[in-house]
Amino acid sequence: MVVCQGKSVLKGIAIGKIYLYEKQEYVLEQKQVADAEAEVARFEAAKETAIGQLDDLYEKALAEAGEEQAMIFDVHKMMLDDGDYLDAITGLIRSEKVNAEYAVHTTGEQFAAVFASMDDDYMKARSADVKDISGRVIRILAGIGDGSIASEEPVILLADDLTPSETVSLDKSKILAFVTRNGSANSHTAILARSMNIPALVQTDVELLKEYHGMDAVVDGLDGKLYLDPEEAVLAELVQKKEACGRERAELEKLIGLDNVTRDGRKINVYANIGSPEDVDKVLLNDAGGIGLFRSEFLYLGREDYPSEEEQFEIYKEVLSRMEGKKVIIRTLDIGADKQVDYFKLPKEENPAMGYRAIRICLDRIDVFKTQLRAIYRASVYGTAAIMFPMIISVKEILRIKEIVEEVKAELTAAGIEIAPVELGIMVETPAAVMISEELAKEVSFFSIGTNDLTQYTLAIDRQNQSLDTIYDSHHPAVLRMIRMTIENGHKGGAWVGICGELGADTTLTKTFVDMGIDELSVSPTYVLGLRKAIREI
Amino acid sequence: MVVCQGKSVLKGIAIGKIYLYEKQEYVLEQKQVADAEAEVARFEAAKETAIGQLDDLYEKALAEAGEEQAMIFDVHKMMLDDGDYLDAITGLIRSEKVNAEYAVHTTGEQFAAVFASMDDDYMKARSADVKDISGRVIRILAGIGDGSIASEEPVILLADDLTPSETVSLDKSKILAFVTRNGSANSHTAILARSMNIPALVQTDVELLKEYHGMDAVVDGLDGKLYLDPEEAVLAELVQKKEACGRERAELEKLIGLDNVTRDGRKINVYANIGSPEDVDKVLLNDAGGIGLFRSEFLYLGREDYPSEEEQFEIYKEVLSRMEGKKVIIRTLDIGADKQVDYFKLPKEENPAMGYRAIRICLDRIDVFKTQLRAIYRASVYGTAAIMFPMIISVKEILRIKEIVEEVKAELTAAGIEIAPVELGIMVETPAAVMISEELAKEVSFFSIGTNDLTQYTLAIDRQNQSLDTIYDSHHPAVLRMIRMTIENGHKGGAWVGICGELGADTTLTKTFVDMGIDELSVSPTYVLGLRKAIREI
Repeated sequence: MVVCQGKSVLKGIAIGKIYLYEKQEYVLEQKQVADAEAEVARFEAAKETAIGQLDDLYEKALAEAGEEQAMIFDVHKMMLDDGDYLDAITGLIRSEKVNAEYAVHTTGEQFAAVFASMDDDYMKARSADVKDISGRVIRILAGIGDGSIASEEPVILLADDLTPSETVSLDKSKILAFVTRNGSANSHTAILARSMNIPALVQTDVELLKEYHGMDAVVDGLDGKLYLDPEEAVLAELVQKKEACGRERAELEKLIGLDNVTRDGRKINVYANIGSPEDVDKVLLNDAGGIGLFRSEFLYLGREDYPSEEEQFEIYKEVLSRMEGKKVIIRTLDIGADKQVDYFKLPKEENPAMGYRAIRICLDRIDVFKTQLRAIYRASVYGTAAIMFPMIISVKEILRIKEIVEEVKAELTAAGIEIAPVELGIMVETPAAVMISEELAKEVSFFSIGTNDLTQYTLAIDRQNQSLDTIYDSHHPAVLRMIRMTIENGHKGGAWVGICGELGADTTLTKTFVDMGIDELSVSPTYVLGLRKAIREI
Repeated sequence: MVVCQGKSVLKGIAIGKIYLYEKQEYVLEQKQVADAEAEVARFEAAKETAIGQLDDLYEKALAEAGEEQAMIFDVHKMMLDDGDYLDAITGLIRSEKVNAEYAVHTTGEQFAAVFASMDDDYMKARSADVKDISGRVIRILAGIGDGSIASEEPVILLADDLTPSETVSLDKSKILAFVTRNGSANSHTAILARSMNIPALVQTDVELLKEYHGMDAVVDGLDGKLYLDPEEAVLAELVQKKEACGRERAELEKLIGLDNVTRDGRKINVYANIGSPEDVDKVLLNDAGGIGLFRSEFLYLGREDYPSEEEQFEIYKEVLSRMEGKKVIIRTLDIGADKQVDYFKLPKEENPAMGYRAIRICLDRIDVFKTQLRAIYRASVYGTAAIMFPMIISVKEILRIKEIVEEVKAELTAAGIEIAPVELGIMVETPAAVMISEELAKEVSFFSIGTNDLTQYTLAIDRQNQSLDTIYDSHHPAVLRMIRMTIENGHKGGAWVGICGELGADTTLTKTFVDMGIDELSVSPTYVLGLRKAIREI
């Protein structure tokens, strides 16, 4: 038995097998090889492995999703056996004496460019496929995983760290818990774990040994411990602990259907934060009063091009319909900083967290912004939609946003499309917004305080920088004073005020927030009932 | 004549020749060469050029600094002709068919490692020399400059952009004006230009053509224009404009010796900011009442190892002595973020401006911190020293600092070293410090508001990110309210309050600051008299 200590980001216990997650990132290097024939052989072997993978994927897709979906893997297999493609790669290795990775990459790019330039939609679409198959072969050559979780059972994911894009592409139904060697308690892995309501440890003193892969393990989020190959007595104790957690949960579930009222009768709205339409299940299951933060980034991440208005409309419509008239606050695109999307072609920045991001991009690329707004307004008739705008620092920005919103509404009305009234609000997540909150409140219906970003700017501490975890203080008096100031000024200006940052779920502060006059708290769905309990006890 | 438009960061006019400054940065690449003998010849030619440069440097140093100083260039020349070194390089090119840059780099590193491992101080010291000569040859091979300004006359420096370390290594006596294609109005180039009181344009729409090198030019900081090869009539007009600037300056000089008092008798301390002991000349020349910000980073930048206590002591002593009892506020090390020093071995960060920097490093590396504090306290008897600490976000930090200061004082006293009383203060440059300024004021004698960093954190805008220049607003009401809050809370807690950021020199705000109750303004020496004028007119 090996016991490792980490920082827990969510209470709860997970029991399962370790899955060693290897980094997907691969840095292409051009190297000279001494023996070109050996390198060609290395390529041939990787190609065979790739074909084997594609066979498996074909079978799996056929069983799960049907012939049409599975077909793509057959197409990939055919392309991988294409004579021109193979000749180009082996030719490059032999003539230039370069490594196979480089030869595959170069050839893949050339073929992709040729396909992309063709005047035929079917052939154009093959451009992405040839990149896909080249990427697969390169990953095999370089011995790195493809980001998928090759396990039938859900697993405890053990990794060095996870990037935001990796967390997006992971198959979440396969994950029981996260354990990472790095990552801060405020990292995306942590936030993802909280939204999935599964235990997670960061900064864990565990080595990433191959032998751990497949090993029985327990993650104890209450004590921040990882037990590898636990002794029987220890395991028994942990199983008991897990059951106790389950009982606690059952207690909370008795609160379903009750109000969020303090003993002296003050009602607080408790809403839920979601990152995709699938999260609505959890929102309903936990009896949240609405959605206080619908992060729209998932629509843009992990794809090759901008999502269409139609595509967005369908998603918003689905979420609004399923919420049956309960409020759904959609936050417009908050891209940039640590959430990078290739096709946006954002500049490389020294300090991306204080860079070109969120509303700054939207006010610069009006088309992208308008597409999103149009989709939301079109969906507005299916429920109670509200929109909030991230990273606001000035009244000027709001005035400009309202102009654009009016244009969108006028365009839709002119086109005979029906729209419903939509509340407009802003994220208060910069110190600037806090300081001018009285003026801002006059322009919008509501504020939602984003405590994560607000804390990082106030303390000048990148919340993802783990070397500063010891001085990062989410209860810092400066932040609490800013929250109080925002609530008071918001009310003065006629706006209701909520919190949608991580701090809203911290029940040690619930009474403080209620005393300050908070109107709404929006938290991960799994925290809704715990928060209801806390409010009812005030 | 070519006229280019840029953003001016300082009024004033410079007339001189263009010096095209090439980037020093060089990214080493390993390439294969087809013809190894041609590559060897390329290396030989570069070596000869390097020897020529070393001959020139030897002559120059001999004339300016004497035989002892010049000797090093002779040593370099000898090393560059060393048979083992040359054979290793040409051998590598021939056997591996690699490019000369790569061969020189690899050989240089190997030889440096061998020297470094020798048990002889003289030979150990040659390790840096062999790196130096290899670097020189590589720069010649790659056709890039060495950062020095090869011109007898002062010039108008034309560059793409300058990094903080480049601005440090430039020979400032050779520069009449800066013109950069990139860089924001708040970049280090801009701040350097202001502190040198020379015109500078950033974001200039000028091409970096080789033919511009040596061309006659005028930088007009009043209109933000660069004139290349100006027509006679235009030149005559600009000369007149320059003379008018000179007369304005002469008017200001009449204020030397007068007080900084408003018409109703309020006295404001006007101090100066300096970045090195040489700046004291300008402080005295402009009749500043003291030094409100002595940036100590220059002691640490552009060198191979930490400055010793003795070395620091001498510098502080010099500045204190020359200021003859006037207050000198030394800011402790503010390294990190965009000021990187190799030997500190700081981690690479995603958002360095909100990272491991300034006091965060000092409270982690107590030895480095104590060395600086000891040097300052030892020098304290030579004048009126004060110390201020950057990037404070909590009372806890101050309490820890005061403990360390007490230890240093006790150690010095125990060693029989005399020390004088030293005022302790902090930079208020994070929103956190503003919000808790009343508590902070009880722990220190003074505040100095760092408006540059405060603005960037408040607005969540990296001030060096030029794509955000349009939304960066140094007069943002949020920042002005924070300044007011800091002054009021400082006074409540018994601390005097000054401003040492760029905003302090903005005379359109002087009345606002005086009305808020500011006690001190510390600005670039060249702004002292203009500020005196503004205060006297209130």
